[in-house]
Amino acid sequence: MEFQDCFPVWNKLTPSQQALILGARTERSVAKGTVLHSGGADCAGLLLVKSGQLRAYILSDEGREITVYRLFDRDLCLFSASCMLRSVQFDITIEAEKDTRLWVIPADAYKQVMEQSAPAANYTNEIMAGRFSEVMWLIEQIMWKSLDKRVAAFLLEEVSIEGEDRLRLTHETIANHLGTHREVITRMLRYFQNEGMVRLARGAVELLDKERLRAVRDA
Amino acid sequence: MEFQDCFPVWNKLTPSQQALILGARTERSVAKGTVLHSGGADCAGLLLVKSGQLRAYILSDEGREITVYRLFDRDLCLFSASCMLRSVQFDITIEAEKDTRLWVIPADAYKQVMEQSAPAANYTNEIMAGRFSEVMWLIEQIMWKSLDKRVAAFLLEEVSIEGEDRLRLTHETIANHLGTHREVITRMLRYFQNEGMVRLARGAVELLDKERLRAVRDA
Repeated sequence: MEFQDCFPVWNKLTPSQQALILGARTERSVAKGTVLHSGGADCAGLLLVKSGQLRAYILSDEGREITVYRLFDRDLCLFSASCMLRSVQFDITIEAEKDTRLWVIPADAYKQVMEQSAPAANYTNEIMAGRFSEVMWLIEQIMWKSLDKRVAAFLLEEVSIEGEDRLRLTHETIANHLGTHREVITRMLRYFQNEGMVRLARGAVELLDKERLRAVRDA
Repeated sequence: MEFQDCFPVWNKLTPSQQALILGARTERSVAKGTVLHSGGADCAGLLLVKSGQLRAYILSDEGREITVYRLFDRDLCLFSASCMLRSVQFDITIEAEKDTRLWVIPADAYKQVMEQSAPAANYTNEIMAGRFSEVMWLIEQIMWKSLDKRVAAFLLEEVSIEGEDRLRLTHETIANHLGTHREVITRMLRYFQNEGMVRLARGAVELLDKERLRAVRDA
């Protein structure tokens, strides 16, 4: 996969705009667990995922986390370059959830192109609108969905990302994704286990009855 | 206040772009309580507030509400023109919270200008980033703040918007802003009243001790 293939508007940029971005971008490989961006002060640049997986989350004062969105192949992360947009006033942390290869585009180069190019600015707009939609979905989940539905939805999503029914996940990790406490997740998973929907092992959750988990999720 | 004064990038548009928007926009007066936009299918156009106040909220299947953001003089509402952005995939309702005068810019006219003009597209980007920040703030409130802090913050914000300490608000209305049940709000307000922070009357809440309410909010 080439860098250019990840930009739907690449051909609408002028040769000098293309050269500016190609000259400025760098390629990086990061290990699972690496924090690529944290908080508002940091301006790491835009991150374009070549392969792997990133997670964007917010942190409470007490160190609790909640996952806001994830980035997969070809996804572009804007908020790691929050200095580019004056109106971005929140602190987000971006972490590699798997070993990841990515391109970094410095914020000033991207901003310069975006200020000149209506296609680049509109493309950026669409990406932000997409993230906005994910965040609105999250608010609906938090506000209106009970935790059993959220845990079932999370497990089913993980299985669809990982492609296997046995997930290597601690209760702590699930709690951090969903913004709750480990004890609460443990209680819920034990309930699912008693109902025959999952099997629990140290550091792993195996989905035994996805049909019923879907029924919980969609109830 | 002129229409043009509300667009910081007005002078960066070409005369034909300016003419397109001026020719397409209409002016409307709506009474308090009017629903201007509801759900994803509707594409009322962009709303630019001349005077008054709008509220954007989401609705659960059971009819519960939560306020996502508000719009005041000169604020531009993008999501009432969600057909303009492919990636907007959530349903929001926009309602006049006071008698409001506003301009409506049809989505297709605005979109046409935004596709040609980098300044217009970047301006739109900044507006969306600002709303995004408000929504992220809301998630933090919902996730990490207890309801006493949220009610105190809401009452103090209302007083600063209204400019007076006696607020005409039902408990139902407060519950709808904060995405909770009326009974929960009633209990909290009675607690505040017992502590001497507010006085309750039919359809009204009077703030007696803003100092202490601020202390609750910031604790």
